[in-house]
Amino acid sequence: MPDASPAKWHLAHSTWFFETFLLSEHLPGYKPLNPAFRNLFNSYYNAVGDRPARALRHVLSRPTLDEVHAYRAHVDAAMELLLARNLSSDVQDLVKLGMNHEQQHQELILTDVKHGLAANPLRPAYRERPDNGPSKLARAPAWQAFPEGLYSAGHAGGEFAFDNEGPRHTVFLVPFRLASRLVTNGEYIEFMRAGGYETAALWLSDGWDCVRANNWNAPLYWERRDGQWWHYTLDGMRPVRDEEPVCHVSYYEADAFARWAGARLATEFEWEAAAQVSAIEGNFMESEAFHPRVAPESASLSQMFGDVWEWTASAYLPYPGYQPAAGAVGEYNGKFMCNQMVLRGGSCSTPLSHIRRTYRNFFPPHARWQFMGIRLANGD
Amino acid sequence: MPDASPAKWHLAHSTWFFETFLLSEHLPGYKPLNPAFRNLFNSYYNAVGDRPARALRHVLSRPTLDEVHAYRAHVDAAMELLLARNLSSDVQDLVKLGMNHEQQHQELILTDVKHGLAANPLRPAYRERPDNGPSKLARAPAWQAFPEGLYSAGHAGGEFAFDNEGPRHTVFLVPFRLASRLVTNGEYIEFMRAGGYETAALWLSDGWDCVRANNWNAPLYWERRDGQWWHYTLDGMRPVRDEEPVCHVSYYEADAFARWAGARLATEFEWEAAAQVSAIEGNFMESEAFHPRVAPESASLSQMFGDVWEWTASAYLPYPGYQPAAGAVGEYNGKFMCNQMVLRGGSCSTPLSHIRRTYRNFFPPHARWQFMGIRLANGD
Amino acid sequence: MPDASPAKWHLAHSTWFFETFLLSEHLPGYKPLNPAFRNLFNSYYNAVGDRPARALRHVLSRPTLDEVHAYRAHVDAAMELLLARNLSSDVQDLVKLGMNHEQQHQELILTDVKHGLAANPLRPAYRERPDNGPSKLARAPAWQAFPEGLYSAGHAGGEFAFDNEGPRHTVFLVPFRLASRLVTNGEYIEFMRAGGYETAALWLSDGWDCVRANNWNAPLYWERRDGQWWHYTLDGMRPVRDEEPVCHVSYYEADAFARWAGARLATEFEWEAAAQVSAIEGNFMESEAFHPRVAPESASLSQMFGDVWEWTASAYLPYPGYQPAAGAVGEYNGKFMCNQMVLRGGSCSTPLSHIRRTYRNFFPPHARWQFMGIRLANGD
Amino acid sequence: MPDASPAKWHLAHSTWFFETFLLSEHLPGYKPLNPAFRNLFNSYYNAVGDRPARALRHVLSRPTLDEVHAYRAHVDAAMELLLARNLSSDVQDLVKLGMNHEQQHQELILTDVKHGLAANPLRPAYRERPDNGPSKLARAPAWQAFPEGLYSAGHAGGEFAFDNEGPRHTVFLVPFRLASRLVTNGEYIEFMRAGGYETAALWLSDGWDCVRANNWNAPLYWERRDGQWWHYTLDGMRPVRDEEPVCHVSYYEADAFARWAGARLATEFEWEAAAQVSAIEGNFMESEAFHPRVAPESASLSQMFGDVWEWTASAYLPYPGYQPAAGAVGEYNGKFMCNQMVLRGGSCSTPLSHIRRTYRNFFPPHARWQFMGIRLANGD
Repeated sequence: MPDASPAKWHLAHSTWFFETFLLSEHLPGYKPLNPAFRNLFNSYYNAVGDRPARALRHVLSRPTLDEVHAYRAHVDAAMELLLARNLSSDVQDLVKLGMNHEQQHQELILTDVKHGLAANPLRPAYRERPDNGPSKLARAPAWQAFPEGLYSAGHAGGEFAFDNEGPRHTVFLVPFRLASRLVTNGEYIEFMRAGGYETAALWLSDGWDCVRANNWNAPLYWERRDGQWWHYTLDGMRPVRDEEPVCHVSYYEADAFARWAGARLATEFEWEAAAQVSAIEGNFMESEAFHPRVAPESASLSQMFGDVWEWTASAYLPYPGYQPAAGAVGEYNGKFMCNQMVLRGGSCSTPLSHIRRTYRNFFPPHARWQFMGIRLANGD
Repeated sequence: MPDASPAKWHLAHSTWFFETFLLSEHLPGYKPLNPAFRNLFNSYYNAVGDRPARALRHVLSRPTLDEVHAYRAHVDAAMELLLARNLSSDVQDLVKLGMNHEQQHQELILTDVKHGLAANPLRPAYRERPDNGPSKLARAPAWQAFPEGLYSAGHAGGEFAFDNEGPRHTVFLVPFRLASRLVTNGEYIEFMRAGGYETAALWLSDGWDCVRANNWNAPLYWERRDGQWWHYTLDGMRPVRDEEPVCHVSYYEADAFARWAGARLATEFEWEAAAQVSAIEGNFMESEAFHPRVAPESASLSQMFGDVWEWTASAYLPYPGYQPAAGAVGEYNGKFMCNQMVLRGGSCSTPLSHIRRTYRNFFPPHARWQFMGIRLANGD
Repeated sequence: MPDASPAKWHLAHSTWFFETFLLSEHLPGYKPLNPAFRNLFNSYYNAVGDRPARALRHVLSRPTLDEVHAYRAHVDAAMELLLARNLSSDVQDLVKLGMNHEQQHQELILTDVKHGLAANPLRPAYRERPDNGPSKLARAPAWQAFPEGLYSAGHAGGEFAFDNEGPRHTVFLVPFRLASRLVTNGEYIEFMRAGGYETAALWLSDGWDCVRANNWNAPLYWERRDGQWWHYTLDGMRPVRDEEPVCHVSYYEADAFARWAGARLATEFEWEAAAQVSAIEGNFMESEAFHPRVAPESASLSQMFGDVWEWTASAYLPYPGYQPAAGAVGEYNGKFMCNQMVLRGGSCSTPLSHIRRTYRNFFPPHARWQFMGIRLANGD
Repeated sequence: MPDASPAKWHLAHSTWFFETFLLSEHLPGYKPLNPAFRNLFNSYYNAVGDRPARALRHVLSRPTLDEVHAYRAHVDAAMELLLARNLSSDVQDLVKLGMNHEQQHQELILTDVKHGLAANPLRPAYRERPDNGPSKLARAPAWQAFPEGLYSAGHAGGEFAFDNEGPRHTVFLVPFRLASRLVTNGEYIEFMRAGGYETAALWLSDGWDCVRANNWNAPLYWERRDGQWWHYTLDGMRPVRDEEPVCHVSYYEADAFARWAGARLATEFEWEAAAQVSAIEGNFMESEAFHPRVAPESASLSQMFGDVWEWTASAYLPYPGYQPAAGAVGEYNGKFMCNQMVLRGGSCSTPLSHIRRTYRNFFPPHARWQFMGIRLANGD
């Protein structure tokens, strides 16, 4: 899977970020442990220099894990020296960016480890924990209504945010409703039973091509065993529980499910408007569940944060007046604003301190290996 | 080129549209000339039945052109019978849809013939006409300013429009400015001379990959001969004239050019708001130039219609409340609402009667073989 | 299908051969009709200059068929002038090469037309002829034995032969037996019924990969209709007759069938040794059957010539002392001596005057669109 | 590189071979350590069951190396029990096959480790050893002549040999000459300087396509640094020494070089005939050079064994009367007898006890990552 990387690479690359954008530029006298790492652990920053083909990450037996740990210790020590200095606000912003960057790679370590272990025919667990068995069934979702009008979207500045979250600007929304909770496995299985994966009329054209080219007939990691659906989790293979949120579906599947259900996905602006009234809490990485949880028994809007990233109906595009950050870190977000869809709200592998109401995650519409799920929306 | 089709196929397919959606359904006693054509000339309507792989269109030596003309005559005769009847408004709408569908394929015949002849090492002209030589140089574009506020977008119904043009709805726009004319070849050559195609920082990530994978270094159909740029036109190879609008560029190139020029592309809503004040006139198929023309010497907004389709910064997505038409014709537009960008305004190969201010054309960001060009926009 | 070309191209290319290798070099004052054709109709001669990508052949709407006929007339007239001169034996040899080259393309016109029409969902016939119905059943093949010993192989020179047929040389063969006739459709259907296409152990590793990648479950052009096998012939769709020779199978299928039958394919040297006792007669292009015929009721060796090219177990390699012809025509054969297998004996689309006992045809092991079939061999 | 595998996989797979073909079949009461390993470590034996896609080998983080060592210890212990029993000659043959199989994977561990480390931008050495600097220049090769006549080829049985080495049979050879030593880097650099990689006429057609598709301009692992050729060795980057045998060339390159040199490659039968007079000694794995050595200063035939596998002009095909071994081990060799060329003589990564005069190694003509080189041959 070209999108996934080994954990050793994630560790080295987030270390590289601090070295390249902070220490090399802003710590006088800094000496890199190994100058070759500057290109070796570059992910996609064209301005930094050549970078290895992505596939190489999987065969980098050297530097060894011990050497990467030594690299990290070297950079950590230098970062302490840097942080002890009187830093300009620009440099302080870069430090925050480096920390947020590292949080993103922490999330990716979990999803990439999951992908790697799930591809192993032995389906080894990442860690072994008891299976608590089924939870109480999720009740039918309620619809939360939001009125027509002008809303503000995007980050207003002040505290840290990625450049793609701003500028804050006004949008006009027609009346809309959001489902009070995420779509469940049980609901998704109904879609499957109703022939969802065999019914062209439910799918976007590219989605239908994708389904047939890849023989998709269920979410990623699902396997049929003795007439029952199982799926790979970081605790190993587990029966699919009807009441849990469906996860590891692509935009194409989210969109087709919504069409089948007579609904649609929310735009990112609708989602953000609704999220104003939700506390930023939920099932994040800190819970160490590493798996989405059953919704609370409430008709209120729930699960807006954590559990699974929610596919929106919005293409990932710049906000009015958007300017990428200057220099190489300007490649962080802006250059990906094409052929991707926005996801909102964070997941069970996102650190809580990392998320914001204005946070825009983005993936191509066929991606499934992140913790990605579905919330339905509807017109008035 | 998988996106282009032979003229014989276009003729057969637009005939098929009338047979399949009108005659078979609404003319009692209609007998198809050849029932096998129902699948043979289907383009992408899954609901109609199996359809041949796209690549097959190029090797369909049978039916011959004579047989396709006979098919057309058969369908034309039956359509006259149908039109003599008292038709419901639903059926009348389908007739209009069929005529607009045929206009779209008329446009495609020109662009596909151009692509086919340009691929021929002999570069044969589609027709031979005298080269009038250079025109007067285009003056620098002026910027037309539009204020912040609520605008209406989309088709209000009443007359014919494609389903993707509605519903009419309100959008909030921040202040913006549009260039008074299209970007010219001369301006684009400056971008090329400045290293545009070699500067990663100017490009979207997917665009940069596309440039390198395809070794793009100029618009489609351009060739360097003895230190001078030439391009293939339907009149054969011609020198590239600085003052003419640049054409046959992808969204990636339009976006990179705009970034290099310190500007951006307009959203489709900005374009539509601006188009309210422009008459629907210009260089359309009827002029039989089949090539974009030099802008008038005026600081007013010009070339909004005709000449080249203008790439916008908007992904092709449904408007709020969008519902595709019922039945198989519902596959016309909605299922393509992913991974494509919107273009506006029509081109020199579009019939004048086909275009509207609300008309949304759409292509993937790498497409170049339509008459596609660039108008710059900017913030306040 | 990248290996097949339109008939117009075959006509232009065999004309080009005479112009390029004979007229341009050996007719003083020869003027090409259109100098651009020199590159346009080059197939694979690197020494002659650039050549268009193979796929282009299918979109060459220009020159038109009329223009190609004019090109042919121009070259024919010049060839008559050339042939009226006193030609050196080298030039005479080139004339013979050009004629044999044209015969090869005549054969390809039939096989390529068959491929193109068979890909058409209408399965149009190339010509309509009455179906004579089943013939008498083929009797079981007899085994013809050949003793161990030294044999001569290859062409001795004197008359025309392709360079790859020589030099004549000695080979030592262990005792072997050849089946008296070709494998029939009925026998091949038994192999299919026995699960031949599903049994990995019967296949070469590359063959098994090919079967699965292409979902092969029958020879090319076979279709199952109402529980019966039909196949496309140049007379249109016909029921598969048990008694006719099986045709349009790849080397992989020929090899797997032989293994299943407890036999093997002959080497090209065994075939050539056996062919010494067979008259060069059979079902060739001249019969205008364009389809293999049922074997005669005889235990003698039959069908060695005509009907179908017989896959041999020999890779296409140079004979000891092989030297390609000098100059560009040296690219005719030698450079293909890798990754191909030898076929012997000609087919129902080969002109009779074209074949020789030493004639070596060659195709990659996955090729099926020529008239290719199977004769079994065995050890002592 | 899909052909290379991690060392952990090689260890597990050669262990698996003993478990699957010996312990499971012939040691009563044998219990596998983990039954899932039966499919997990299968390489290509269709008869054994499903097997993972080859690419998976690179992401098998589990079982860990410790677990694979435990697996090996488990199998080793069981093998000792088996070997203490009174074994039939069939089972004894399987034990020898397992040992020879393991030797093949030992060789592959070295070549695959070399490939993996060479792909690393750091070019880390497998082990660090002093560079002894240039050796004495190799003298021009002499030509050893062999007369026309009948020769025996293939293994006569008795001692262990792979099934593809037999049966022993008679071949007739025309007079030929072999170069007394391998082609050197210096000679190969002359070919490169003479434009070898840019001259289509020197190449097989598939070879020329391969050169252009992969931008080959030197042997694998060669890099140009400051006007000098370096290459990656298991001791790290080293200057290319003129006098050493050229290595890591494909069949296409070997063939093109020979054509440029006015010579050819030997057939495997010529090689084997010549090898009758050479002692089986040379630079094998046991020397731990892991790199080919300079030829001795002698006009006698040298370097026939060890240093580099020598590409022959022979396609890998069955000998007359060849029968693969019964059962799943019959997939060992026979099913690969297509689209590959034979190499002879062993290399510096082959164990000495593994090689025989009749030993047939085989790879596709584009393969370069084994220690593969060139010996020239010629006609009389």
